[in-house]
Amino acid sequence: MAQLMRQLGYATMGSNPLLTSRHMSVMAKVLRYGEFGEPAKVLQLQEEPVPDPKHGEVLIKTLGAPINPADINTIQGKYPVKPAFPAVGGNECVGEIVAIGGGGSSSLKVGDRVVPFATGLGTWRSHAIYNANQLMKVPDNIGVAEAATITVNPCTGYRMLKDFVTLKPGDTVIQNGANSACGQAIIQLCRAWNVECVGIVRDRPEFGQLKDYLKGLGAAEILTEEELRTTKLFKDGIFRKPKLALNCVGGKNALELSRQLDQAGVMVTYGGMSREPVTVPTASLIFKDLRFVGFWMTRWTKENAGSPQRSEMFNELFGLIDRGALKAPAHEMISFENYTTAVTNALNIQGFVGKKYIFQF
Amino acid sequence: MAQLMRQLGYATMGSNPLLTSRHMSVMAKVLRYGEFGEPAKVLQLQEEPVPDPKHGEVLIKTLGAPINPADINTIQGKYPVKPAFPAVGGNECVGEIVAIGGGGSSSLKVGDRVVPFATGLGTWRSHAIYNANQLMKVPDNIGVAEAATITVNPCTGYRMLKDFVTLKPGDTVIQNGANSACGQAIIQLCRAWNVECVGIVRDRPEFGQLKDYLKGLGAAEILTEEELRTTKLFKDGIFRKPKLALNCVGGKNALELSRQLDQAGVMVTYGGMSREPVTVPTASLIFKDLRFVGFWMTRWTKENAGSPQRSEMFNELFGLIDRGALKAPAHEMISFENYTTAVTNALNIQGFVGKKYIFQF
Repeated sequence: MAQLMRQLGYATMGSNPLLTSRHMSVMAKVLRYGEFGEPAKVLQLQEEPVPDPKHGEVLIKTLGAPINPADINTIQGKYPVKPAFPAVGGNECVGEIVAIGGGGSSSLKVGDRVVPFATGLGTWRSHAIYNANQLMKVPDNIGVAEAATITVNPCTGYRMLKDFVTLKPGDTVIQNGANSACGQAIIQLCRAWNVECVGIVRDRPEFGQLKDYLKGLGAAEILTEEELRTTKLFKDGIFRKPKLALNCVGGKNALELSRQLDQAGVMVTYGGMSREPVTVPTASLIFKDLRFVGFWMTRWTKENAGSPQRSEMFNELFGLIDRGALKAPAHEMISFENYTTAVTNALNIQGFVGKKYIFQF
Repeated sequence: MAQLMRQLGYATMGSNPLLTSRHMSVMAKVLRYGEFGEPAKVLQLQEEPVPDPKHGEVLIKTLGAPINPADINTIQGKYPVKPAFPAVGGNECVGEIVAIGGGGSSSLKVGDRVVPFATGLGTWRSHAIYNANQLMKVPDNIGVAEAATITVNPCTGYRMLKDFVTLKPGDTVIQNGANSACGQAIIQLCRAWNVECVGIVRDRPEFGQLKDYLKGLGAAEILTEEELRTTKLFKDGIFRKPKLALNCVGGKNALELSRQLDQAGVMVTYGGMSREPVTVPTASLIFKDLRFVGFWMTRWTKENAGSPQRSEMFNELFGLIDRGALKAPAHEMISFENYTTAVTNALNIQGFVGKKYIFQF
């Protein structure tokens, strides 16, 4: 029977042919939407049979799929990437391979944990068929939460820290939105590379708790927006003047961030939570030689598919996760059936640090 | 006597020792200021004997020295470069060498026309002593107005067009303040390099005349700020979407300029005439990958003194002037004694195009 299955074009799952035949009638749960709108209203949980993986394809069982702000914005129609309807939500996940289409795959085998690295695949589903070449194998020692959230935030932080200025140990990076999922990754990457990360957050009743949490991750200092305006940390030489500012807020907060930058410093914008533009004083451009650029992980991934830089990045990130130097952001695993709660609360900060929801199936 | 003069450390001017001895009692007229303020109030025209040039020094008679906006701002105390008092105004000139200090100069001779390329030397004087290595010989066929104004505006335009994006023939550059002295140089450089230059100016009664003048210099199109807001020149493919925007205005004008930029385009800011900052929408940074940088010729010159890039730039600029492809900006030669009129009107546009005053002596 196993041989028959192979002839029919299926890799077997272990040596038990029953396992193989079982996946051929898999029913998947899928979160679909047919129009833009508030996610809780437009998303629908559907059940459908999963087709068998063809040559070059792989069937995975999803182990975890996070809800990122961009996923919510996409469903709201506020994101520049517009899916064709009906669309499946989500852009990240980790899954386990349950079957490989005819001919098998040279690099993947049943049981492997994998993450898709293309975006727009629609990851909010319990099972999915992907092309084998869209998947990256995850080392066995990487946890579900870390693997499910690796391709967006840690990669965004990694590239922003690597690609715009050359940071040496002891240099300073300043970032706002330091409590965001990306902010948490940036703090940990800075710590791993001996770079001082000064983080800015909005003032809040639990500021002390949040500061402790982020310093525990490795932040050199955490300031409120108000404290940033009058800080002498850089003037007094407690930290070197920042070479790099990472901005996901915009408005006055970004302006204050840029004021702390060293001569020839760079501000990289990757988000705009305040919905206000970045204001750039003319003198800071001409006389201080500051540069203002943007970063979008989706574009980087498209432009660097299959590049050695990408492999190097994931190897380093997996290595950091393995030695406990890079943890998943504060998160809550939530049952796929409770998606309404998850998508409704995904953009609201609850508690002292933003909490990322990760669907489990 | 000529031999005696050489022994005393002076190169002779031709073979007539009387010429040599005469320059030893030169009286110079110098425009000095001892405090920051309105130029017409704080500047004083003084007469003083010029010391003899020492070894490595050169005595020049100034033929022309322009009044640039930065010169006015420096005297007002509004510029980041603060001179020591008493200070001499001006940063550009062309002069003729009348004597060379002891030992002579390998590359310069009496009668050569030269421009100083360091800034902050104080060029508003009828005669000056410079270090020979601060001077660049100007080919004989370059006019006084062109030579006197070459180191600031044409060089600024040249570097901004060369150093931030790679422009190919048929590409588009968009600039505001197109009627400024730098704007006029940019238009001519674009024409020389087969790049389409679309210029923006403020609306004014003489807009038609100004447009004709700037198109005569080589501008592909001239628009008012209002026309820029609704133009379809780029959407309709009349011109390629600009890769480069050159901004000396700031505020809403700069924002409108950036909206026309192509994906991954660059805005270079080199002035801020509106005194308003540059506003950068978050989406244009993240999704359109625009970059916002500044340019300051003073810094470039400091960082590239003696570089092959600098020689290459001046050779190309002199070549363009020689074949009539690069003319001085609209200007008026004005007697040094009339400095009050010149410094008072230097920042006011009179007539349809800004007019640069150049002191003659």
